[in-house]
Amino acid sequence: MQQPRANLAIALLHYPVYNKLHEVVTTALTNLDLHDIARSSRTFGLDRFYIVTPSHDQRALAERITGHWQAGWGASYNPDRKEALDIVRVCDNLGEARADFQAGFAEPVKTVITGAANRSGSISCQAFRQMLGTSERPFLLLLGTGWGLTETCFDDADHILEPIAGAGRYNHLSVRSAAAIMLDRLRGTP
Amino acid sequence: MQQPRANLAIALLHYPVYNKLHEVVTTALTNLDLHDIARSSRTFGLDRFYIVTPSHDQRALAERITGHWQAGWGASYNPDRKEALDIVRVCDNLGEARADFQAGFAEPVKTVITGAANRSGSISCQAFRQMLGTSERPFLLLLGTGWGLTETCFDDADHILEPIAGAGRYNHLSVRSAAAIMLDRLRGTP
Repeated sequence: MQQPRANLAIALLHYPVYNKLHEVVTTALTNLDLHDIARSSRTFGLDRFYIVTPSHDQRALAERITGHWQAGWGASYNPDRKEALDIVRVCDNLGEARADFQAGFAEPVKTVITGAANRSGSISCQAFRQMLGTSERPFLLLLGTGWGLTETCFDDADHILEPIAGAGRYNHLSVRSAAAIMLDRLRGTP
Repeated sequence: MQQPRANLAIALLHYPVYNKLHEVVTTALTNLDLHDIARSSRTFGLDRFYIVTPSHDQRALAERITGHWQAGWGASYNPDRKEALDIVRVCDNLGEARADFQAGFAEPVKTVITGAANRSGSISCQAFRQMLGTSERPFLLLLGTGWGLTETCFDDADHILEPIAGAGRYNHLSVRSAAAIMLDRLRGTP
């Protein structure tokens, strides 16, 4: 297995997240989350994008989707897609993702959690960009699906990243769009 | 019909675009293009997002998708989605989109085209942001589907926007991710 080099990786969590009724659930995989976030991650130089779900069937589905583009017909039809999906790793839980990412680094992995709401003690994208640029420390950016990661996840994370501010009170980006904007803010060259 | 106010709007073109074999085709509508770009556009304060396709059936499909979330069950289930999809207009061709956007402005609409390749004479996102901020002129940002907008489209556009630079030679963002990043660069408050 190729060692990770970029000190930023993304983990997309399908559990534990809220549903619309604020119940803790496991969400279903969204095919385009996998494609879009892999392509954005690869474009901004990440070496790992973790799909995290405790569901065995959903992990098998994620492996089947990535496998389709990594071997055989899909890989020869669209080599660019293969290159993006090569960085995807499918994990049972966050600890497993963290351990895989840790393998390439001496310093311990720190987690940075994201959500749509403003929370006290959040760091800005600018501050996080500086942390990434000035240290060898690996950071795992946690993105939630459904109606967002649970409070427990926020309690457990090392840092909270401020939400992306739009033009007004409306702020309902898809997780795919939010990931793209964050990657650009953290690693883009405007 | 509510008058547009933001002097930036997006048009997602499904024709004329290239396919993988560099043939000029009409691409099929992608459901999540519509949702994601509407949500990003609304988040960054746009009043219009045009879906452009010459296919009668595809326009009917686009109207059915937006209609589902604007009236009846979808609208009451997810009012945030309704608010995003309220800015979508489905058009037969670019001229129709341009005319609708023009209605809210005295100065003529200028088109700004985007693509993944570097082209001479392109303007940067920073320069475009300044143009948007310092004039009343309306700008229509043209996004392509498939393997990108045809050369004729580039010849006809008033400005070309430089592609989003990633970390290396890999640059294969989805149109949904590219739109999100451009909107953040053009109208975000980092």
